[in-house]
Amino acid sequence: MTVTVAVDTTGADLGPAEVAEGALIAARQGVASRLYGPAAILSEVVGDAAGVTVVDAPVSIAKEPDPAAAVRAHPDASIVQVARAVGAGEAHAFVVAGATGPALAAGLLHVRRAKGIHRPALALPLPVPGRTPVTLVDVGANVESRPEHLVQFAFMGAALARTVLGIERPRVGLLSNGEEPTKGTPDVVEVHGLLRERLADNDRVAFVGNIEGTTVTTGAADVVVTDGFTGNVALKLIEGVSQTVIGGVRSAATSSPMAMLGGLLLRPALARFKSEIDPEGPGGAYLLGLRSLGVVPHGRFSRNGFAEAIVRAARGVEGGVTGLVHDDLQAAGALRRPPAPVAATAPSTGAASATAASSVEPII
Amino acid sequence: MTVTVAVDTTGADLGPAEVAEGALIAARQGVASRLYGPAAILSEVVGDAAGVTVVDAPVSIAKEPDPAAAVRAHPDASIVQVARAVGAGEAHAFVVAGATGPALAAGLLHVRRAKGIHRPALALPLPVPGRTPVTLVDVGANVESRPEHLVQFAFMGAALARTVLGIERPRVGLLSNGEEPTKGTPDVVEVHGLLRERLADNDRVAFVGNIEGTTVTTGAADVVVTDGFTGNVALKLIEGVSQTVIGGVRSAATSSPMAMLGGLLLRPALARFKSEIDPEGPGGAYLLGLRSLGVVPHGRFSRNGFAEAIVRAARGVEGGVTGLVHDDLQAAGALRRPPAPVAATAPSTGAASATAASSVEPII
Repeated sequence: MTVTVAVDTTGADLGPAEVAEGALIAARQGVASRLYGPAAILSEVVGDAAGVTVVDAPVSIAKEPDPAAAVRAHPDASIVQVARAVGAGEAHAFVVAGATGPALAAGLLHVRRAKGIHRPALALPLPVPGRTPVTLVDVGANVESRPEHLVQFAFMGAALARTVLGIERPRVGLLSNGEEPTKGTPDVVEVHGLLRERLADNDRVAFVGNIEGTTVTTGAADVVVTDGFTGNVALKLIEGVSQTVIGGVRSAATSSPMAMLGGLLLRPALARFKSEIDPEGPGGAYLLGLRSLGVVPHGRFSRNGFAEAIVRAARGVEGGVTGLVHDDLQAAGALRRPPAPVAATAPSTGAASATAASSVEPII
Repeated sequence: MTVTVAVDTTGADLGPAEVAEGALIAARQGVASRLYGPAAILSEVVGDAAGVTVVDAPVSIAKEPDPAAAVRAHPDASIVQVARAVGAGEAHAFVVAGATGPALAAGLLHVRRAKGIHRPALALPLPVPGRTPVTLVDVGANVESRPEHLVQFAFMGAALARTVLGIERPRVGLLSNGEEPTKGTPDVVEVHGLLRERLADNDRVAFVGNIEGTTVTTGAADVVVTDGFTGNVALKLIEGVSQTVIGGVRSAATSSPMAMLGGLLLRPALARFKSEIDPEGPGGAYLLGLRSLGVVPHGRFSRNGFAEAIVRAARGVEGGVTGLVHDDLQAAGALRRPPAPVAATAPSTGAASATAASSVEPII
C-alpha cells in the first residue's frame, strides 16, 4: 500500500509554500501527499514533482475563534475538504498545519470517531534530551474527562508510541501529585486503579503507576496520561520554562566579554542539545480516536517539521495505529459500548438517545 | 513588637544543626526564633547567641506517611509543640523545615483556621530570572477545591506578595488552558468571573485574567492561582524541566575540549543566573489561611534557605499578612460565612453540624 496523506497548508505562519516544501521532503522519503490550499502558490513550489498533488482550496478557517461553527459554515474550507477526503477514503491520514481546533472539529464531523472510542484526544510526543520523545496525552482536545476516557487515552498514547515512535512496549504513567496510588483527585485515583487492572500482564503496554511533574522530562514513562486541562497547562509550562532557562543561559553568555567568548566556544555543543529538544522533531500533536490518524504540526514550524508530520502520519498508518487502539481496548474490555438499539430498550429510550446525541457533539 | 518565629528543625536533610545555623543568620538580621528539636545538637550551634532559644523536642514526625494521624498520635512531636506554641501566642509565626503535610495537619489542629477562611492553601514564590518571584497558589494543600476556595487563594497569595515579597499592587492571574475568559473547566470559568467581579476597582490587587503555562515564568502575573492538584503538578514540572534543561547545558559543556573551555569561561555568568533562580531565595512554601503564618522551606535547603524562611515569616507578621487577607476578603464579600447557630436553624441542624465538623477535618 502506498500511503497518501491529505494536508491542509493554510495555517502555517510561514505560509502554504513552506508546507509544500515539507511535502517535497516527505515525497523524497516515499510518502505521497495531497496539498490543500491556494493552488497557484502550492503548484509553484511543487512543480511536477512525483508524489505530491495540489487541490485548490484557498478558504482557510485556521484562525477562526469558533472552529466548530466555522467548520459547518464553510464547507469549502481547506480543512473541511481535507477531512472529507479522508472520510471518503481518498487519503489515509491528515496533516493540518497550525489549527488544532478546526482539525478536531472537522475530524469529528467528516472523519468521525472510531468505533468504541469515547472522545478523541490530542497526544504530543515531547522531545527530551537523549531519549525517545515522551508522549503527553491529552494536551487539550477535551477540557473535562471522565475516568474511562483517560483509560482510553492511555491505550491511544501507547499505540502512537509503538507505531510512530517505535517504542516496543511503551511504559504508561499517570500524571499526579504523588507517586502513591492514593495520590490525586478522586478521578485520578480511579484511573490509577482501572489502568492497573486493565494493563496487568499486558505484553504490549506496561503501567508504571503515577508520575510526578519532576520526572516527566527524565523519561520515567514513555506515555504520560492526564486530562486535557492539566495536559494543556503542563505542555505550555514545559515550553515556557524551557524558553526561560534557555533565555537565561543566552543572556548569561552575553553578560561580559569573557562570557561571550565562552558562549561562542560552547555554541556547537549547545546547538546539538537544542536540536535534541527541537519541537519539530516529532512532527507535532497527534489527533487520536478518529477513524484515521491526524497530525497537527505547530503553525510556526518550518518545512522540516511539516515533513516530519507527513512522514510520521504515514508511519502511523503503516503501523495500523487505529486498528491497534481498537484491538487493545477490546482485549482490555475498555471499548465504549454502543448505545443499545431503541427497540431493545423501550423503557430507557431517553437515556439511549442522549448517548447517541452526545456522540456527534463537537467537544471543542 | 519583636517578632518571634517558632521553628521545627527536625525535617532538614542536612540535620537540625543546619537549621540552627539559619536561625543564627536570621537573628543577626533582628529576627528572634525558638528552635524545636534535639536540644544537645541545637545548643551546640546556638551557644549563647542572642535572639535564639532552644526547646528540647527530639521526636520528629517529618517523614510520617499519614501526617494527620501522626500529629494526633505524637503530641510531643517537635512540629506539634511548634504549632501549640504559636496557637498559644508564644510565637508569632512558624517555620517547619521539610514537612508540608505535618505542618498543615498540626497547623489546622493547633494554630487553627483563620476566621472566614474555607481552606488553608500552600503558596510558593517561584524564583524567576530578573524579576520578583511569581507566587503560585495552591501548590498542594488541597487536592480538590471549589470556586470560592480559589477566590480566597487569590487574596491570600496577593497579601503574601505584598507583605513578604514587597509587591505594591500584585497582579493576580488564573492558570488556564487559554487566555480567553471562556477557557478552562467550568470551575475555572466560574472562578474567572468571580475574580473579575471581586477584584474590579480594587486598589490593592489587580486581576489580569487567565494565564497560560507559557507565561508563568515570564512574569505575566505576580500571583498565579490554581487548584492544588494542578498547582502541585505545575510546580514539580517547573522544577523537573529546569533541571533537565540545565542538565542538558551542563552535558553540552563537557562534550568536547572546546565546549569545556567555553563552559569554564561562562561559569561565573551562569552562576549568577543559577543564583537568580535558586529556590532557597524566597524561603520556601507559605502556609496561608491559618491564624498565624507558616513557612515550609524544602528539606534539602541549606542554612541560607532556612534563614530566608525565618526572616520572611517575620516580614509577613510585621506586614500583618493574616489581617490583610481578612480585611480584603471582607471588603470583597468573599469571607466564608460562619455556620448559623444551632438554635436559629432548628430545621437544618444536620447540615449546620456537618459544616462545623468539616471545618476541623484535616484535609491532607
